[in-house]
Amino acid sequence: MRLSKLVGERIKEIPNGATIKSHILLLRAGYIKQVSAGIFSLMPPAQKVSLKIQNIIRDEMNKVGGQEVLFPVVMPRELWEKSGRYSSIKDEMVRFKDRTNHDMVLGMTHEEASVHMALNTIKSHEQLPFMIYQIQTKFRDEPRARGGLIRVREFTMKDAYSFHLSQEDLDAYYKKVYDAYVRIYKRIGFKNFTVVEGDNGMMGGKVSHEYMAVTPAGEDSLVICPNCGYSSNMEVAVAVKEENDHTVVGEMEEVFTGNAHTIEEVCAFLETDAKHTAKAVCYKAEADGKLVVVFLRGDCDVNEMKLQKFVRSELLPVDVEEFGLFAGNIGCVDFHPENAYVFFDASLKGLENFVTGANKKDFHIKNVSMSRDLSDVQFVDVALVKAGEKCVHCGAELNLTRGIEIGNIFQLGTKYTQTMGMKVNLPDGTSKEPIMGCYGIGVGRSLASICEEKADDKGLVWPMTIAPWHIHFCPLRLDDENVSAVADELYNKMVAEGIEVLYDDRNISAGIKLTDSELMGMPIRVLISPKTMANMEAEITMRETGERFNISIKQLIGELKSLISYEIDEINKNA
Amino acid sequence: MRLSKLVGERIKEIPNGATIKSHILLLRAGYIKQVSAGIFSLMPPAQKVSLKIQNIIRDEMNKVGGQEVLFPVVMPRELWEKSGRYSSIKDEMVRFKDRTNHDMVLGMTHEEASVHMALNTIKSHEQLPFMIYQIQTKFRDEPRARGGLIRVREFTMKDAYSFHLSQEDLDAYYKKVYDAYVRIYKRIGFKNFTVVEGDNGMMGGKVSHEYMAVTPAGEDSLVICPNCGYSSNMEVAVAVKEENDHTVVGEMEEVFTGNAHTIEEVCAFLETDAKHTAKAVCYKAEADGKLVVVFLRGDCDVNEMKLQKFVRSELLPVDVEEFGLFAGNIGCVDFHPENAYVFFDASLKGLENFVTGANKKDFHIKNVSMSRDLSDVQFVDVALVKAGEKCVHCGAELNLTRGIEIGNIFQLGTKYTQTMGMKVNLPDGTSKEPIMGCYGIGVGRSLASICEEKADDKGLVWPMTIAPWHIHFCPLRLDDENVSAVADELYNKMVAEGIEVLYDDRNISAGIKLTDSELMGMPIRVLISPKTMANMEAEITMRETGERFNISIKQLIGELKSLISYEIDEINKNA
Repeated sequence: MRLSKLVGERIKEIPNGATIKSHILLLRAGYIKQVSAGIFSLMPPAQKVSLKIQNIIRDEMNKVGGQEVLFPVVMPRELWEKSGRYSSIKDEMVRFKDRTNHDMVLGMTHEEASVHMALNTIKSHEQLPFMIYQIQTKFRDEPRARGGLIRVREFTMKDAYSFHLSQEDLDAYYKKVYDAYVRIYKRIGFKNFTVVEGDNGMMGGKVSHEYMAVTPAGEDSLVICPNCGYSSNMEVAVAVKEENDHTVVGEMEEVFTGNAHTIEEVCAFLETDAKHTAKAVCYKAEADGKLVVVFLRGDCDVNEMKLQKFVRSELLPVDVEEFGLFAGNIGCVDFHPENAYVFFDASLKGLENFVTGANKKDFHIKNVSMSRDLSDVQFVDVALVKAGEKCVHCGAELNLTRGIEIGNIFQLGTKYTQTMGMKVNLPDGTSKEPIMGCYGIGVGRSLASICEEKADDKGLVWPMTIAPWHIHFCPLRLDDENVSAVADELYNKMVAEGIEVLYDDRNISAGIKLTDSELMGMPIRVLISPKTMANMEAEITMRETGERFNISIKQLIGELKSLISYEIDEINKNA
Repeated sequence: MRLSKLVGERIKEIPNGATIKSHILLLRAGYIKQVSAGIFSLMPPAQKVSLKIQNIIRDEMNKVGGQEVLFPVVMPRELWEKSGRYSSIKDEMVRFKDRTNHDMVLGMTHEEASVHMALNTIKSHEQLPFMIYQIQTKFRDEPRARGGLIRVREFTMKDAYSFHLSQEDLDAYYKKVYDAYVRIYKRIGFKNFTVVEGDNGMMGGKVSHEYMAVTPAGEDSLVICPNCGYSSNMEVAVAVKEENDHTVVGEMEEVFTGNAHTIEEVCAFLETDAKHTAKAVCYKAEADGKLVVVFLRGDCDVNEMKLQKFVRSELLPVDVEEFGLFAGNIGCVDFHPENAYVFFDASLKGLENFVTGANKKDFHIKNVSMSRDLSDVQFVDVALVKAGEKCVHCGAELNLTRGIEIGNIFQLGTKYTQTMGMKVNLPDGTSKEPIMGCYGIGVGRSLASICEEKADDKGLVWPMTIAPWHIHFCPLRLDDENVSAVADELYNKMVAEGIEVLYDDRNISAGIKLTDSELMGMPIRVLISPKTMANMEAEITMRETGERFNISIKQLIGELKSLISYEIDEINKNA
């Protein structure tokens, strides 16, 4: 490819609104262009990367027996009503009426479509297990599109669905896909990713895992044990709580605390610290409008995902005065509001000698004792894990980090086969609903996440396995006839030898050429100039390491081919 | 692939509602499954064919310098308002509001998106010409979905857009893509296709060509000159009209014709023939509600596509009584309705001694003469071409046939670059809107059309270049241990040698196996059985020709590889 004809431009400035490295660089290097909020066009280099990632995914899916299919983007309402998701999924799913006034949806996932395909075409137990997958555009009307390709509304996704006769068979196959995913991310070039226990969200089912690219730009909080490898999305993470050790207990005493409402204010006022307080965090349950109150130790925070599971509802902000309570003075002693959900987090277990609200304007109570004053409390785990808390598996101190979810796998159970009436005949004459697994990978998000991992302050850095081109060929001084003749000849040779090369054939300054090559991120830069040609040499620079060496032009093609194979082999041999 | 695990089933019966060969066979052979009207899932074999077709297209697009990109499926209203198409395209385009109440559309074509990508990223004349293309899912809310994959609402399409500085440059590039398309269809395996002059429809611009798979199942009427190669979609076809030779002219005379209203009835009543009559065909113009009347010779029919261009409006059916006219008695003598469009088709040129309506209930006029009674008439060409009319280029008699449009190419002019404000800088300091071309191929429609061309009464017949698998391996009597051991061994060898093989590993009757292999349509069937194995042989059957021969099992793998290469080479060498 001649750079002079490549669609796209390279820009120096940080584009408006872009804050994340991958977003900034993909825009600056001419890889993507925004069309609307969360909707991008992929320009030629990005589409090349995307296709290479897709081929790696396809290859690994085929190796675990996957059969590639194509489901529709647009589906009729009826299909989604069978599973109950037409109503359970809200604004994220786009709905429209077609010209005959029929309700249609844009598929944001394809469990229903996969069962529809198997329904009546798979009848016998002998046909199971099987897995079908597709690579296709999906649209989710994401409320918080941000970060370039990290969180978008339209995206290319690989989604796969497997069908099994027994939980054991699903478990075994799930493990196979788990491993295939590890290979996929390694082959893409990720070095820094982890697999965490996930939350099933709208999918139903129980076991699930999320593949996380570990990066400070990530939206997800991860809890990781450096000792035993336990790793979890914060949403479902568990830890051994620090034990409470306040044993000196005085009599309960109501104290005036005036305008001190936040934990920090109350602690300052009463000269105590947050670990000696029980705070109340309140919500309204979306499902039934009831008040939700969580008591937890003052230094802890609520894990809303966990709390939602106890309440079985989304949580909304609440004005507690509506419920006759005094904001900033809610406390756990003698607290019995009508028609409310009240939870005590495990962080309060064994807490003695602590401060809590007096349920009375401008007052708190001190010297409260869980064992003496609240002995009948049932504790639940609804607090976020904190760094330094202990691993439940090995007792080591946990680390917190951030990650981008680049893939996920779920055990779905029989939710979809049951609701859609898919059964297969068993040898004993009975029939059974297959148990399903589902497996997703976001292609664009993987592309952006590898940028987050690899890119440096000069620009993008592509692993050889997915680089748009292997070589960025940079002849300097194309106004020199010697250079331009040799450059054209070398370019033609590279193309003829099947080397993927981006040829900067522009007769412009060395500065722009070199800066562009660093910004665009091909793994190998080949430079010739009147100076290198004086020795009949070319200069090779490895983008990732900066390693630089000269090589005779005669040996160039051979050297490039072996460098490319070497790099690809290095990545794949670990996969 | 083991057939026992392949998702899909083979069925004997003709599925309800399927009337076209490709639709029936793709359903019966387990290639597609309908999800909603005009919306299908592609099952594993069809997706394999689709990917192979896509790769042929991709290869040829890259050879003419195309740069692959990806445009969004969902686009904001604003983008389509710039070109004026947000309002000019009607119900075919799906519109919806996103969660922020913003108007969005599903892209049914991507001229706007292609200019959006080039806008500001292409600034200099040096970057032109260039062509960008994508292969992606599109949705058009087609009112008459039918024929399986022939006319659908959701489909995979390759669409390409080129940008040029001059008409000459576009012409030259257009020719290149024209030829690339011919190579694509040949490589897919088409033998019976033709290129016709097309109608630009909603695209704007002038020059266009349609690639037509010639088949009786086609929806389009084609006019083809067997002598000089002139070929055209009926919508825009022209021909030399048969000359009128009625020279004996009597006096005009009003005659009672009573209930004789149609041309047949009037001719029977007056004992003349349709060639001696001028009939009126009426419509209402959608744009302004005016009456549209076309007079043409009684044996001719109106070409509504041509007529629409004169009226500049869609045409609706009309009740002529509303306009004070007598249906069946409208005639061209002294016919001056207020506020109507009146056209005389060229078929009436020089007509003498003919019958037309008297514009009076139950009466016609006979002995009308164009030259004497209607000498000031301007003729236009708004009749359908008929078989046997003469080619305007060479005078040979024209043939009519039918075709399925499998691709089209258009010269767009500057409609989109002008309305969207895309300019490139010229060397002289001025700037200019690029001239565009656009180029589409329907992947699914090509797949269905090649079925129409190749399939026989036993089932599908795939060309080697796009077959889901090259080999259908059919061992009979798998209950025989010898057979099953050799079968497994041969299957593993084929896979190891990179031969794409569908292995019928089911232990079922020979009848079902052989019928399935014919239905599914792989190019080569390899059969082993206790009988062939007695001579250590396998039986090879070529699906298309029925040619059958035995070969020693030892030589089988080598023979298959050379048969496969030979077939692929045969197809490609003509491309």
